Amino acid sequence: MGLEVVLADGRVINTMDTALRKDNTGYDLNQIFIGSEGTLGFISGVSVLCARRPKSKNVMVMAVEGEQFERVIDVFKVARRELNEILSAFEFWDAESMRAASENLGLSSPFEEKSHFYCLVETHGSFEEHDLAKIEKFYSQVSSSNLCKKAVIAENRAQFSSLWSLRERLPESLARDGYNYKYDLSLPLKDIYKLVEDMRNRLKGSRFKRCTSWAHLGDGNLHLNVSSERFDPEILALIEPFVFEWTKKRNGSISAEHGIGRVKRDYIQFSKSAISLEFMKNIKSMFDPNMILNPYKTIPK
Amino acid sequence: MGLEVVLADGRVINTMDTALRKDNTGYDLNQIFIGSEGTLGFISGVSVLCARRPKSKNVMVMAVEGEQFERVIDVFKVARRELNEILSAFEFWDAESMRAASENLGLSSPFEEKSHFYCLVETHGSFEEHDLAKIEKFYSQVSSSNLCKKAVIAENRAQFSSLWSLRERLPESLARDGYNYKYDLSLPLKDIYKLVEDMRNRLKGSRFKRCTSWAHLGDGNLHLNVSSERFDPEILALIEPFVFEWTKKRNGSISAEHGIGRVKRDYIQFSKSAISLEFMKNIKSMFDPNMILNPYKTIPK
Repeated sequence: MGLEVVLADGRVINTMDTALRKDNTGYDLNQIFIGSEGTLGFISGVSVLCARRPKSKNVMVMAVEGEQFERVIDVFKVARRELNEILSAFEFWDAESMRAASENLGLSSPFEEKSHFYCLVETHGSFEEHDLAKIEKFYSQVSSSNLCKKAVIAENRAQFSSLWSLRERLPESLARDGYNYKYDLSLPLKDIYKLVEDMRNRLKGSRFKRCTSWAHLGDGNLHLNVSSERFDPEILALIEPFVFEWTKKRNGSISAEHGIGRVKRDYIQFSKSAISLEFMKNIKSMFDPNMILNPYKTIPK
Repeated sequence: MGLEVVLADGRVINTMDTALRKDNTGYDLNQIFIGSEGTLGFISGVSVLCARRPKSKNVMVMAVEGEQFERVIDVFKVARRELNEILSAFEFWDAESMRAASENLGLSSPFEEKSHFYCLVETHGSFEEHDLAKIEKFYSQVSSSNLCKKAVIAENRAQFSSLWSLRERLPESLARDGYNYKYDLSLPLKDIYKLVEDMRNRLKGSRFKRCTSWAHLGDGNLHLNVSSERFDPEILALIEPFVFEWTKKRNGSISAEHGIGRVKRDYIQFSKSAISLEFMKNIKSMFDPNMILNPYKTIPK
């Protein structure tokens, strides 16, 4: 809600004292700095509106039935409908990710039988009993429509953490393969897994080890990952710019959450139009005419 | 999430097709246009992320106990705690507003006894039974702590509308007094009613009819209103710039939701620092060098 920003000329814009939920007095300068990756000013203070700490937290991991990714979307739709105001996370990962976690970290799936797709559903609410009733209704609907084979729900704090760690330790497990090629994309939900399938087909015959994916599905945000024993320019050439072109075709974002930085600076045109880039450059010149703030990043040459 | 904006030179920035929940590719130009009141471009299309239509909606109106405004804040705190994820509105109005509604529109309070303060609490949820249980718990807590004398809850659609109309017809009721002086302020919750009391003291002896207030209390947004039979420059001189100075001292906003436009253009410095105004002017020059878009508004001379 408020920021303290040191500008390129040393002056300071401070909106920390007037951090208000509602303020419609002129342009919202805070929003220009948020996500600008230090290229417009050095953010030295933030005022954040926090959600209340939830009194009731639950997490469940589910094995989705079948081989069609559409099933995962169907589970998500039921979650949105039945868990609505208490749904705080809907995460997804595929069989290949689960296999990496098991082979590289010894993490075992909570289910004996293997599935193509796994989901993690988290709720935050203020009344345990109500939340559990909603979760039960959600589960009875996904199981009666044959969307979900099996589910486990955390019954204590330790189980809560261990279910989350199945998802959260996936990057670590993949790192143990050797070198990772990592992508952080926003895509329309219906297309989101097609990219993983297309990428696997494309990589056939190359020296890649695995092509895995996990997603913050509720946000439409896919993490696509390829691993190989060591860095291999042939694999990279198969992935890029293909992955960015694929994303652009579906009006997605080539950087859902990680920003542009140096690595994606010269690919930004896959997600930003020429006119948007022109105004980005104008804004950069306005705040930092000497280009001294976080140089060589975000703004393409 | 996405906008179509016609710029001053006739070109169009279109982010409608790539409207995504998560996108961190460079500066978020949409945010510069939102709230710019047409001074940077003509917004001809918007893409909005909608909340799900709630399956369960409830509204209650409450008569707060006592003469201290702190009691209203206490009721709000209990509502935040007990209704948390289903709380969709927390509105407030004072006895003077209720009197205007009764005298000018014939709307009667749902309570026989008069109170100093009234609140309206609305909930949106996905499971009626759970919502009613939460509301019951909330009410039992505010009544057992003597915060609330009496409450009515809507039992059908007609009652839902008629309870909301008590709040929503307050501007109309005040308009019937003659001329209205209206202010739309964000203030820290603890100070929010002090302004109404200070204003009433200040207006004593002038030809004002009423000084009333209602608030979107959950947003910290006060609507302060003064009425008189006809426009009276002496009353205006008592209110302005006093009301803006008072707000500035508490780091509030002189325009919580209505924007700046022409009317508040030359008061914007009460809510924006000199350096923020300098950059607002720079941004204006960048997008509209000939100053043809919505001229004479928002940006001070």
